[in-house]
Amino acid sequence: MTTLGALGESAVLARIFPRLPQADAQLVGPGDDAAVIAAPDGRYVVTTDMMIHGPDFRLAWSSPRDLGWKAAASNLADVAAMGAVPSALVVALAAPADTSIDFLEAFADGLRDGCAELSPGAGVVGGDLSVSDVLTIAVTAFGDLEGRQPVLRSGAHPGDVVGLAGVPGLAAEGLRLLFEHGVSDGVPDASAAARVAAEHPVPVAAQLRPRPPISSGRDAAMAGATAMLDTSDGLAIDAARIASASGVRLDVRGLSREEFLGGEDHCLLATFPSDAQIPEGFRVIGSVAEGSGLSLDGVTVGGDGWDPYRGWNGGAG
Amino acid sequence: MTTLGALGESAVLARIFPRLPQADAQLVGPGDDAAVIAAPDGRYVVTTDMMIHGPDFRLAWSSPRDLGWKAAASNLADVAAMGAVPSALVVALAAPADTSIDFLEAFADGLRDGCAELSPGAGVVGGDLSVSDVLTIAVTAFGDLEGRQPVLRSGAHPGDVVGLAGVPGLAAEGLRLLFEHGVSDGVPDASAAARVAAEHPVPVAAQLRPRPPISSGRDAAMAGATAMLDTSDGLAIDAARIASASGVRLDVRGLSREEFLGGEDHCLLATFPSDAQIPEGFRVIGSVAEGSGLSLDGVTVGGDGWDPYRGWNGGAG
Repeated sequence: MTTLGALGESAVLARIFPRLPQADAQLVGPGDDAAVIAAPDGRYVVTTDMMIHGPDFRLAWSSPRDLGWKAAASNLADVAAMGAVPSALVVALAAPADTSIDFLEAFADGLRDGCAELSPGAGVVGGDLSVSDVLTIAVTAFGDLEGRQPVLRSGAHPGDVVGLAGVPGLAAEGLRLLFEHGVSDGVPDASAAARVAAEHPVPVAAQLRPRPPISSGRDAAMAGATAMLDTSDGLAIDAARIASASGVRLDVRGLSREEFLGGEDHCLLATFPSDAQIPEGFRVIGSVAEGSGLSLDGVTVGGDGWDPYRGWNGGAG
Repeated sequence: MTTLGALGESAVLARIFPRLPQADAQLVGPGDDAAVIAAPDGRYVVTTDMMIHGPDFRLAWSSPRDLGWKAAASNLADVAAMGAVPSALVVALAAPADTSIDFLEAFADGLRDGCAELSPGAGVVGGDLSVSDVLTIAVTAFGDLEGRQPVLRSGAHPGDVVGLAGVPGLAAEGLRLLFEHGVSDGVPDASAAARVAAEHPVPVAAQLRPRPPISSGRDAAMAGATAMLDTSDGLAIDAARIASASGVRLDVRGLSREEFLGGEDHCLLATFPSDAQIPEGFRVIGSVAEGSGLSLDGVTVGGDGWDPYRGWNGGAG
């Protein structure tokens, strides 16, 4: 088996780069000290995120292709949550020296598929490859605001409606199923995980290969969204962030406890003026009021109110 | 002792962010899904690099402040090597759960000092903090070309002169000294390293707190540099990269073997038209000829020629 340690960084990169998606915005690509990317409106959006083997994923559950996909998807979602169109990513990977080239190629294929299916035109413009005992993925993603103002967390106003794009709760359900049934003697196990995935394909795919509604970010911005974020920590926590940053109260209705708490949903949660045309892909799940904090179906959450997390185990690792 | 694991990511970030340098180009800073950065000429330069405990640094030798400094410096140098002015960085850090907040604050201080001293106006616009058994630093840095074309590796022409800014060989000498004398029973040792640093402050500082000539990148571009790169792998390897990418031969003169081989020098190596005014900070070390490959003082390097690496130990870890 050809490994990273045996082949060396340069030779491995030569095998990997042709598999990576090319970015439409790329002016100078991989191979020099740095890449050069177009920023047509004179600004660019930037987000960075690390995924660590152990806390963030388990190789018994995620294929390398899953990892590439998820690394792309989660960062593209943060770009979309600003109302931007993702343009490019740089990807740094550190892997054990005995990692096979097949693994690294499949990881690159996952990046390519994730970009192609979720955000066509976005691509990988550079990267870095290192050796580490702990498999570590660091992605930085960029986006283009197309002349619009970024949609921050802080712009929600009383009277706005709350919209949600994407399906909350599923990814946490997938993680719960994997922790409950994807183990053998308490340790993540590939065969057990394959059985779970066959029986519950939708929640497991939501966990391992999330499909954030990337283009809905731009749609929301064009519809006049006043605030938006990516619900990576679950709808309840992220809705509270909009409430806090905007100095308002969010009243959410009609979600189950599982949908409300969630985790790694990568939905887009946005607020819109009451007279806005809510874009396709969003459903209205509540409204913005004066005050602070959050409620679900009229019951205040947190503070002296309901603690929705009591007894909750979304399977978070 | 307050640790990363005990305090949690959000609380730690609240302690760290006020210490980080603010970027002049920052339009939206940390705290939302993504940052927004100005790209005045409609393009931006991007480079990314990971530093891993073990292969890339040892905590017995580098203080957290050194690490922050070096993480900034090495990425700023890649931006400068495109002829750009560094504008912003995003920094992802993964550290063991028992890492002290003092350590993380000192790391942030190193980032701040590195930016302030090497490239005033550049700052940290976002980041990510994770838990990992292996201390891992991933920096992505950005720069502004100010309307100029990027200076690639591929533009050197026969007749050009070769210029060098920065001091080659010192960082490798520092690493060699640390490997030779900064150990106890063969293991990196802080007390032994402190003695080495006291006896040989210049090479050890070049290794642990490099000072790449960042502003010389812009100066070279404005003087018409035809090719440029950051000599992170040592002058010989990086000069051969310019030769290969440009389809020319580089004839280098007047360097010692130690200066020629180096490693982690973070010098800027550039080629200029023969009639160019070589900017302050650069010294002429050779010329560009038709052909391929590299020579030092008339002796061909590599291929069937001299193998300067025979018996070489730059202390590379």
